[in-house]
Amino acid sequence: MLRFEYHNLLASKMFPSAIPVDKLSEYTSACDAAHKEILSDRQVDILGFYNLPEQSIEHIVDFMAKLDPMFDTMVVLGIGGSALGNKALYSALRTEQELPRKLFVYDNVDPIFLHEILSSINMDSTIFNVITKSGTTAETMAGYMILMDIIKQRFPSDYRKRMIITTDKEKGFLRQIIKTEGYTSFIVPDNVGGRFSVLTDVGLVSSAFTGMDIGELLRGAAAMRDRCQTTDILANPAYLNGLIHFLYYRQGKNISVMMPYSNSLYDFADWYRQLWAESLGKRKDIKNRDIYVGQTPVKALGTTDQHSQVQLYAEGPNDKIFTFLTVENFKHDYVIPNLHPDREEVSYLGGRKLSELLNAERFATEIALSQAMRPNCNLIFPQIDEYHLGEFIMMYEIMTVFTGKLLHINPLDQPGVEAGKIATYALMGKAGFDKERAGIDSYKKELGLH
Amino acid sequence: MLRFEYHNLLASKMFPSAIPVDKLSEYTSACDAAHKEILSDRQVDILGFYNLPEQSIEHIVDFMAKLDPMFDTMVVLGIGGSALGNKALYSALRTEQELPRKLFVYDNVDPIFLHEILSSINMDSTIFNVITKSGTTAETMAGYMILMDIIKQRFPSDYRKRMIITTDKEKGFLRQIIKTEGYTSFIVPDNVGGRFSVLTDVGLVSSAFTGMDIGELLRGAAAMRDRCQTTDILANPAYLNGLIHFLYYRQGKNISVMMPYSNSLYDFADWYRQLWAESLGKRKDIKNRDIYVGQTPVKALGTTDQHSQVQLYAEGPNDKIFTFLTVENFKHDYVIPNLHPDREEVSYLGGRKLSELLNAERFATEIALSQAMRPNCNLIFPQIDEYHLGEFIMMYEIMTVFTGKLLHINPLDQPGVEAGKIATYALMGKAGFDKERAGIDSYKKELGLH
Repeated sequence: MLRFEYHNLLASKMFPSAIPVDKLSEYTSACDAAHKEILSDRQVDILGFYNLPEQSIEHIVDFMAKLDPMFDTMVVLGIGGSALGNKALYSALRTEQELPRKLFVYDNVDPIFLHEILSSINMDSTIFNVITKSGTTAETMAGYMILMDIIKQRFPSDYRKRMIITTDKEKGFLRQIIKTEGYTSFIVPDNVGGRFSVLTDVGLVSSAFTGMDIGELLRGAAAMRDRCQTTDILANPAYLNGLIHFLYYRQGKNISVMMPYSNSLYDFADWYRQLWAESLGKRKDIKNRDIYVGQTPVKALGTTDQHSQVQLYAEGPNDKIFTFLTVENFKHDYVIPNLHPDREEVSYLGGRKLSELLNAERFATEIALSQAMRPNCNLIFPQIDEYHLGEFIMMYEIMTVFTGKLLHINPLDQPGVEAGKIATYALMGKAGFDKERAGIDSYKKELGLH
Repeated sequence: MLRFEYHNLLASKMFPSAIPVDKLSEYTSACDAAHKEILSDRQVDILGFYNLPEQSIEHIVDFMAKLDPMFDTMVVLGIGGSALGNKALYSALRTEQELPRKLFVYDNVDPIFLHEILSSINMDSTIFNVITKSGTTAETMAGYMILMDIIKQRFPSDYRKRMIITTDKEKGFLRQIIKTEGYTSFIVPDNVGGRFSVLTDVGLVSSAFTGMDIGELLRGAAAMRDRCQTTDILANPAYLNGLIHFLYYRQGKNISVMMPYSNSLYDFADWYRQLWAESLGKRKDIKNRDIYVGQTPVKALGTTDQHSQVQLYAEGPNDKIFTFLTVENFKHDYVIPNLHPDREEVSYLGGRKLSELLNAERFATEIALSQAMRPNCNLIFPQIDEYHLGEFIMMYEIMTVFTGKLLHINPLDQPGVEAGKIATYALMGKAGFDKERAGIDSYKKELGLH
């Protein structure tokens, strides 16, 4: 079971300036209200991620059973919620479990990045998975057109088996292509927003492909969901962590650092970055005044960033709340040989495991930050496996929605990305954006840009 | 030449709430004072990075000329300033220039990460480069002992040629080992701090190994340094950018986002993270009161993070200043084929280059953020090569020191990392830390930890 250590989030003898535990009870009615809103959202089926543990995964099992065994690599074409979860799961388990098949995620339109992926794969044994709900995401569709063109030319007789498409179940351009061309397809459901979709076909297909036990992912998620049904705040890790993050945010801590002491879990900090930023970073209208809310998520890596960020974390402004991710048992480990028993600079390391040093440094950083009165908590993975990752995903999804309710914003939309999309359409000459194009031209003229 | 576009940092018709250009002249005397302090620091030789362009690189050229051609891979063992620059340079040029030799940087004590590197390399053709000035960095020395043990056992007759050591020129344990064992060695100089050391042997040896033109790196750095000697603030990109960051920080923007629109440059945002955080995140004593200063650097990636962070950037709190990195010309590029000319959802992409889409999205994000009154600027790389990377490195090193002077802190120290180091020694049982160990035991007891 994933364990949540929060002793450095609440006031203690060592850390008197933290939030007193009594403070939490002042928010009982706010928490109850948030809880009720979640229940009613679930009633109208806009929080579908809660029910994903019970979904059938037969169709994925079936896909894997029928898959041509020549495929040893998958390239996902997707971005944001159609990429970050896939990458995070793969990075977490790739080496830890020595997964038998490879995954690449092309989640940009950088030509060098595409060149790098194309140089790294064997096209003959690679299957592509295009993931976009709308079928209009510019980045994903650009990649789709380039790669579809390549595989059609290279494999004119069997290109159809080399591309699968994950999109809306009925609507959109890609669904039509699936029907006319006969590609294998998967569904991005209506009731699960992109950034909450890692446990749908979006994340499960690539995970099953690489060799993960996706049933275990869902069992872990179910266990955490069940643990997070209670309104007894101290027994509900998602609600408790959400409430405390909310309280520190209101105290002016506008930055939330997630710092895994594990390279394997580093990409989960990126997944968290989207979840937290896009869900909670919102403009709201209070009495005709715009109010801007949202805590900025930051990823850091232990111990690496002790030599980069900890100076700022310990002695810079007290504007952050920290979450460590700790792994207790690693599948591979190394004992540090005592090469220089007579040299006290290094002899204390001799005979100790690398994981011991890693976790001692994690604990040392906890102590140093607590001494500097910087609130911090710790999520402990007994080991990195599908079950614990499923727990983690569900905990953070619930925590995010709950915190959104406390902030009185809609954690499920993202209206602020429209302006950039429209400007891109205008700049790329898409039909129907002449007015915006004229606006951009005058902007450029004003600033003397070409 | 690297170009610095700052029109969205200063007030204009489109962005009236930005800092007015007149405001800058109020800081003329502060800037002059900062400039004078830099000159006097250079006089007493504590800002050695300024003079690195004139250093001799003969010894590196010589090392490469004599190197056994069987080596096709280098593994750097280092952390923080002994790793981030190496990684950033390699990531920037690896694919862009198809570098002939590989680099891995083991900059953590994560056992899975070590397992991954050991699984990826061919030990027979790998040379290791241990980089630590003091020879006492726990992470680096742990890696050194594990790997030295492996290569000694595997190559008893010629292990000496498989390890090079970069450390203090006279002091420390590793320098002694170099003398007794006869390893090839390089120097971490006294007058260049770790996070400013990428253009010393620390970063140059691995760069030369992988196939970069390190002379060009230095020529680019020299050109930027010469450009940044003037106190005419608008003509000095390092001073100008430093001053404006300082002013926005004082207005409450405690976050600085660096967002390359280039996967190749993403690791340079990590290099910047250390430089900015560790140099400027400081406690200072004003009239016996502790004041905590420092802006938190954040890395983001375009276009990828448009689908993750831009919602927060555009509609969350106005607490950030943004720096885009733009690349004008990529060595590899792809034209998007017009696969579906009858579908307006995607036909506008047809016939355009990937790089055009990438840079249109960059410009669209600039417009969207400016409309939302979020200050942003743009650094333009005509192309990614050694010369422009050298310019970039020098610009940011000067900018960081200058900003530190404006903040009245010492940008060259890092006193805040000591507490964590001491706690690690205590936890790992190093001799002489009994008192600290007792303190930690009582901390654990108090909190009921085991």
